[in-house]
Amino acid sequence: MPSSTRTETDSFGPINVPADAYWGAQTERSIGNFPFGPREQMPVEIIHALGFIKQAAARVNARLCGLDPKLAEVIQQAASEVARGDLDTQFPLVIWQTGSGTQSNMNANEVIAGRANEILSGMRGGKEPVHPNDHVNKGQSSNDSFPTAMHIAAARGVEGKLLPALRLMLDRLNDQAQRWDSIVKIGRTHLQDATPLTLGQEFSGYAQQVSDCIERVESVMPRVFRLAQGGTAVGTGLNAPKGFAEAFAAEVSQLTQLPFISAPNKFAELAAHDTMVELSGVLNVIAVSFTKIANDIRLLGSGPRCGLGELMLPENEPGSSIMPGKVNPTQAEMLTMVAAQVMGNHVAVTVGGMQGHLELNVFKPLIGANVVRSINLLATGAESFTKRMLDGAEPDEARIAELMNRSLMLVTALAPEIGYDNAAAIAKHAHKHGKTLKEAGLELALIDEETFDRVVKPETMIGR
Amino acid sequence: MPSSTRTETDSFGPINVPADAYWGAQTERSIGNFPFGPREQMPVEIIHALGFIKQAAARVNARLCGLDPKLAEVIQQAASEVARGDLDTQFPLVIWQTGSGTQSNMNANEVIAGRANEILSGMRGGKEPVHPNDHVNKGQSSNDSFPTAMHIAAARGVEGKLLPALRLMLDRLNDQAQRWDSIVKIGRTHLQDATPLTLGQEFSGYAQQVSDCIERVESVMPRVFRLAQGGTAVGTGLNAPKGFAEAFAAEVSQLTQLPFISAPNKFAELAAHDTMVELSGVLNVIAVSFTKIANDIRLLGSGPRCGLGELMLPENEPGSSIMPGKVNPTQAEMLTMVAAQVMGNHVAVTVGGMQGHLELNVFKPLIGANVVRSINLLATGAESFTKRMLDGAEPDEARIAELMNRSLMLVTALAPEIGYDNAAAIAKHAHKHGKTLKEAGLELALIDEETFDRVVKPETMIGR
Amino acid sequence: MPSSTRTETDSFGPINVPADAYWGAQTERSIGNFPFGPREQMPVEIIHALGFIKQAAARVNARLCGLDPKLAEVIQQAASEVARGDLDTQFPLVIWQTGSGTQSNMNANEVIAGRANEILSGMRGGKEPVHPNDHVNKGQSSNDSFPTAMHIAAARGVEGKLLPALRLMLDRLNDQAQRWDSIVKIGRTHLQDATPLTLGQEFSGYAQQVSDCIERVESVMPRVFRLAQGGTAVGTGLNAPKGFAEAFAAEVSQLTQLPFISAPNKFAELAAHDTMVELSGVLNVIAVSFTKIANDIRLLGSGPRCGLGELMLPENEPGSSIMPGKVNPTQAEMLTMVAAQVMGNHVAVTVGGMQGHLELNVFKPLIGANVVRSINLLATGAESFTKRMLDGAEPDEARIAELMNRSLMLVTALAPEIGYDNAAAIAKHAHKHGKTLKEAGLELALIDEETFDRVVKPETMIGR
Amino acid sequence: MPSSTRTETDSFGPINVPADAYWGAQTERSIGNFPFGPREQMPVEIIHALGFIKQAAARVNARLCGLDPKLAEVIQQAASEVARGDLDTQFPLVIWQTGSGTQSNMNANEVIAGRANEILSGMRGGKEPVHPNDHVNKGQSSNDSFPTAMHIAAARGVEGKLLPALRLMLDRLNDQAQRWDSIVKIGRTHLQDATPLTLGQEFSGYAQQVSDCIERVESVMPRVFRLAQGGTAVGTGLNAPKGFAEAFAAEVSQLTQLPFISAPNKFAELAAHDTMVELSGVLNVIAVSFTKIANDIRLLGSGPRCGLGELMLPENEPGSSIMPGKVNPTQAEMLTMVAAQVMGNHVAVTVGGMQGHLELNVFKPLIGANVVRSINLLATGAESFTKRMLDGAEPDEARIAELMNRSLMLVTALAPEIGYDNAAAIAKHAHKHGKTLKEAGLELALIDEETFDRVVKPETMIGR
Repeated sequence: MPSSTRTETDSFGPINVPADAYWGAQTERSIGNFPFGPREQMPVEIIHALGFIKQAAARVNARLCGLDPKLAEVIQQAASEVARGDLDTQFPLVIWQTGSGTQSNMNANEVIAGRANEILSGMRGGKEPVHPNDHVNKGQSSNDSFPTAMHIAAARGVEGKLLPALRLMLDRLNDQAQRWDSIVKIGRTHLQDATPLTLGQEFSGYAQQVSDCIERVESVMPRVFRLAQGGTAVGTGLNAPKGFAEAFAAEVSQLTQLPFISAPNKFAELAAHDTMVELSGVLNVIAVSFTKIANDIRLLGSGPRCGLGELMLPENEPGSSIMPGKVNPTQAEMLTMVAAQVMGNHVAVTVGGMQGHLELNVFKPLIGANVVRSINLLATGAESFTKRMLDGAEPDEARIAELMNRSLMLVTALAPEIGYDNAAAIAKHAHKHGKTLKEAGLELALIDEETFDRVVKPETMIGR
Repeated sequence: MPSSTRTETDSFGPINVPADAYWGAQTERSIGNFPFGPREQMPVEIIHALGFIKQAAARVNARLCGLDPKLAEVIQQAASEVARGDLDTQFPLVIWQTGSGTQSNMNANEVIAGRANEILSGMRGGKEPVHPNDHVNKGQSSNDSFPTAMHIAAARGVEGKLLPALRLMLDRLNDQAQRWDSIVKIGRTHLQDATPLTLGQEFSGYAQQVSDCIERVESVMPRVFRLAQGGTAVGTGLNAPKGFAEAFAAEVSQLTQLPFISAPNKFAELAAHDTMVELSGVLNVIAVSFTKIANDIRLLGSGPRCGLGELMLPENEPGSSIMPGKVNPTQAEMLTMVAAQVMGNHVAVTVGGMQGHLELNVFKPLIGANVVRSINLLATGAESFTKRMLDGAEPDEARIAELMNRSLMLVTALAPEIGYDNAAAIAKHAHKHGKTLKEAGLELALIDEETFDRVVKPETMIGR
Repeated sequence: MPSSTRTETDSFGPINVPADAYWGAQTERSIGNFPFGPREQMPVEIIHALGFIKQAAARVNARLCGLDPKLAEVIQQAASEVARGDLDTQFPLVIWQTGSGTQSNMNANEVIAGRANEILSGMRGGKEPVHPNDHVNKGQSSNDSFPTAMHIAAARGVEGKLLPALRLMLDRLNDQAQRWDSIVKIGRTHLQDATPLTLGQEFSGYAQQVSDCIERVESVMPRVFRLAQGGTAVGTGLNAPKGFAEAFAAEVSQLTQLPFISAPNKFAELAAHDTMVELSGVLNVIAVSFTKIANDIRLLGSGPRCGLGELMLPENEPGSSIMPGKVNPTQAEMLTMVAAQVMGNHVAVTVGGMQGHLELNVFKPLIGANVVRSINLLATGAESFTKRMLDGAEPDEARIAELMNRSLMLVTALAPEIGYDNAAAIAKHAHKHGKTLKEAGLELALIDEETFDRVVKPETMIGR
Repeated sequence: MPSSTRTETDSFGPINVPADAYWGAQTERSIGNFPFGPREQMPVEIIHALGFIKQAAARVNARLCGLDPKLAEVIQQAASEVARGDLDTQFPLVIWQTGSGTQSNMNANEVIAGRANEILSGMRGGKEPVHPNDHVNKGQSSNDSFPTAMHIAAARGVEGKLLPALRLMLDRLNDQAQRWDSIVKIGRTHLQDATPLTLGQEFSGYAQQVSDCIERVESVMPRVFRLAQGGTAVGTGLNAPKGFAEAFAAEVSQLTQLPFISAPNKFAELAAHDTMVELSGVLNVIAVSFTKIANDIRLLGSGPRCGLGELMLPENEPGSSIMPGKVNPTQAEMLTMVAAQVMGNHVAVTVGGMQGHLELNVFKPLIGANVVRSINLLATGAESFTKRMLDGAEPDEARIAELMNRSLMLVTALAPEIGYDNAAAIAKHAHKHGKTLKEAGLELALIDEETFDRVVKPETMIGR
């Protein structure tokens, strides 16, 4: 309980606000109406994006809408503090509020007005001389501002965190694909022994997956860069002047150094968030790729003595509170857990995305929060996995060679020589009687030694 | 194109119907309006349930509502043919129709009237003397009949197919848990070597999972046995006489030999399908359990020469079109694919279940079809996996013993004697230098030989 | 950066820890290895549960395992501080760590040892005289402790928060069902006008849904009350004395006043988390029910002048930053967003639950965190929606009556008198020509006025 | 039961096959091992794709691998019959088989060999002169053929069915956006009355959604056109000659008239199906878009007398078995059910896609079948919805005008004149006392009549 308060008002009347808060009546009301507590706060990435929005809008409003330049200046200053994260503590509202994000938009409007008024008058808060609605929110609605914030936050997260992490991972995997390109090993399909390949080839598959994921992300960004701003309440742009949308997008591009444009149709951008669902779908693919890669790493590193044991994984910490000396593939476990969360978040985004009604989808905070969280989880997870797992993994070449030479599936190389059915007979005979392939082939008189030795060479079975 | 047709009529007017079809105008209209083709037909289990419904309703209508006993008799006869599956070809309609299932309900009404009229008059089809709405559907609406059919179809599938398959699987796993109870093997946590257990203990875990799933299914059935019938159009029971609902439930119970009752609140049963979502959630748990079990079986059976190789799996068919002699754990693959489908179906059911509007949920065919399909997939999958995979699996005891004796995690038994930190030092030393635990312990002078031999005995580390 | 540090050690060697932290080396290592930051911290509910576990274990260890009573006493004291939430700041670790939750278990062990040592020696931290593994974790493994914490946290959340919130909601809905039982209104199926019911009947359906959800939750709790503790590393109970599991469950029951028991098979409890998936499935049904109810409320309250307008919803805050005077159904929006999140969390739990390998499922923190979050979201959401939406909603009886009297579906009452086909003709005629039903019936000469007036009475069409 | 059989053999020995079947031993074995029945058959689209593959491979094998031209010729002929659908009845195998699709690949190999042998020798079936493995499957493995079939089937479905259906829908929506561009109506946000827009603008939003979906589909196709063929068993291309992959892709392109290319990395294409997950993610977005559009249509068409009633929807069939004359938005119900199924299928594809192990993902049939089904459902659903719902929908202009003129949210236009707070006071006063905005404004003396009339004009509030 704050010991000292001041009174703020909105169309519902007066309400007490902590004296040291920048926010106003509508923020305070939302705190009381949605008591989910600090663990469920709106992600700061969306708050920062609202900062950029208010900064850009003030510039455009001064130019196109007759906003007093002095007010525009101080709004920009306060908004830039929000964008930089200096006022994060002033955004106590939670994700689970009105589905348009109006209350977080008003939180931004109120904090920026409250801070601007402090700069101008020495008095924190209030609506004079800067009014949260009439000045800070001028030419805007929550209905276009909040989806704009979702796109800005997503784009900044993708460009600033996710793509760099994916590229780091790709570099490492490409290195390993090259470095280990001559280590011939047993292939496994259906988890059963199959024909050989090199460890480098195996890792080239992972590299390709990550490379494709980068391509996928890049192919969705043109739609993420489209901003709803300028549509105002229902998409018509009522109360925003002609040219507002385009001028705004240009300002945001300049502030963020990302190529945002004004969306071609504002009705669709307010009423649906298909592009967020699409982006989430791409994050879902990344989660799928990561699960495959991390699972393989833990399979290859299983052991140390009773598993496959082809990779030696880095030891980052003690693995067990009861089994002394145990070391576990914890980075793989982290990454696959992160992936499962992203898959779940994707369903939440899908369920939210499908439920728009007429001019507005009112699942905006849910969608925005999940997309931002998924981006962060994948980016941090990928970077950590690369640095703490891939970087330290090394092949156990002796073990790899030992396993490869045992395999029965080298018989595949014989099929073009003696036919599938005869080759199958050799493999089955060897398996049943615990023989080598050559022993089995000779016993069954299906191949002569010279031919066998010429054809069954793992190092020539790897497609070079 | 049928060469010969007859004319049927509904409130939209006349329409041509194949001369040999039992169905009428509304069915024919639905065929034209929803051209998804035979692959997307409404599951026959729901059709059969509609047969039981019409049979039971005719009995009640004769008793309570003045339905001419002669008509009631012939309706029952025709409806019992539907219930038995004799008229499956007369139900061409697809899942993707009106969301109340009205058209499938009318398909049943029309086919039963058409067949009843044939019995009475020798003329197939029509509305005389038996009318599809006024007689067959008497006292009913699609809005209560279709959810009743969903519950009957689900209950019959669970009781007749799924529970028997689960019990078969449980028996087999319990057998194996007992049979293999003295085979001590390496445990694996995080896919890394851990302390030992017996193969029987490992299988007892699977048995417990299946046993719990049976318990879960049984705990949801009391709600599945509740029938919506008697609510008619919106839940009030308009046009159904007093006592209809209870009398109907008693008749269906007698026909199906399952303990159906009339639902306590009909409004909820028409407007939502929470119990179907709940049942689907239990099927989802079964899918989760099956994935765990089938994955373990394929891990334990991986090899034959380059995997874990602790289980020898039955060989059911050639495994590869290119690798001669390869055998794969195909039943495990089938079961995990089935499980993935059930998880997907569960999301479809959830998405459908959440979208009711006011007095009616109009995702009924989607929900019913997915629940029925999931039941069938799990039941057939479980039975096949039990008979073709579990039945033939055998431990490779030599391999199991070889791996167990290599393990470093037997060191855990030393921790209560010499402390966690010292035990960890021994394990790490052994791992680093390729030694046995005893060698490492003696080298580090952390344990004497006598104590080591007394304490580190796998067969005493399994909790007996 | 803490200005002052002390050195702690584990099997990986020494590491610096903030001087004022209670935690030790393994916690510090995890902070460095999983840099997801404070937003992704392990839920405190799981931390508190670990407090109960360590408290209960100390009691049992003193009795059954020769733990020095003085140490046992101080461990209990420190653990009770963790259970009460007094040491929440000492748990910086994130969800995305090792999949067994080992690091959070060690965090608890270290903090309790560190606090116990402070009590005994005045020196915070360290391993003397109380050792985190040898004393606090005695007879335990993360592999059994962490799933035990998951079950305790889930059970306390369900019993302490979710069920009370559901019961509050049910009471309110039952009140409304009774209070509004004589307000006859138009029914709507397919969002199209249908036969009438009372507003009270409509709300009785919602009440039934909530009542069924309570029944569902209660039916899963017997399995949630089963604790894994006593299985230690792989389920065999190695290093835990005979009777530990049962004695432990009894102590936890006493501490939490909830009927926990020792799980019948520990292998299943470590290797799979099917009961968490099942519980999540029940939370998913609650989310489905809430979506239906909240959607109906916002449909019925749509307007104020251009929607259905049958309910007047409470006005809690200004609804729009651009449209003055607008009021929105924000509590319904919050509740449906919460529901979408729970559906997404359920998929994350399912994906995590299906991926156990052999003796251990390593998606424990993911599963635990999502189940706890879903419980909290549903509980807070339900309570808020009840207090801030249901409590203030009132019927607009004039509007309800006006709409009801317009409806064409009152024609249904005529069907038993004049047949379905004639009744349909009347309705269609009225619709086409903008007439009342009576006008249409008379014009078509299908009914006489006296019969019409006798039969078509909404107040007799509601099943009484 | 076939009355007459012949004997076929594989590496497991002889087995009886129906005398009139073209298939051989491996197909017959699969029928027995996976008893899911005809409802669960592998989609014919994948069978047809296998036909194209075998046709193309025979051409390349004749050119590059010394396959006897006579055999190559007859294989091509038989394979083209499979591709055309002439032999669909010869493919009895179900989705739930080995996870590599080996058995369906062998089914194709056997049927083509069996048919080719019939052409050459008059004797159906067998392995002479054309052998299913050595000739039809030459240079191929199921592991590369089946994913190739998945991509071909998906690409053909997208290009041949889905994109045309989306374009048809887009054309119609664009027409309506233009045609209805001057019909000013009330906007609704949060399902509450908001500022006006035109009906054409509302539909332009739907058109944009569909247009974006087309863009999304097109942006994923470059990856769908990548074929795995040439990777053979594990990605190395063992037993396929140099140049096989590229020559094959060229042949398939020519046969299908689609721009297929050889995938840059075959290891990734066998071991993971990220592109199928990505495509499924795009289908999921389409499902989301369709749900929004269809939901809006049914909201706008709700009534006829007690709903919004702004659109008059086409009447396609009788809507109720109990309520005479009722007409329902069944095409919207079909489309939203289809969408829910696609969302569920997407989760199944995701769960299957994430579970590859090392060199092979063994959820191929699950993934392929779900992607193909989703494409078909969306394509047929979109076309039907366009033709049977959009085509016949017409605005009720009188009703639209009546609602628009009632709205309080026209007050928004006053905010720039008199400030947000004063405008809010007017709206609240009007709402509370049942007044018009103008009456309220004058009563509160916040606006004069002349200004009101000048500013509050719906037709100027739509952003022109």
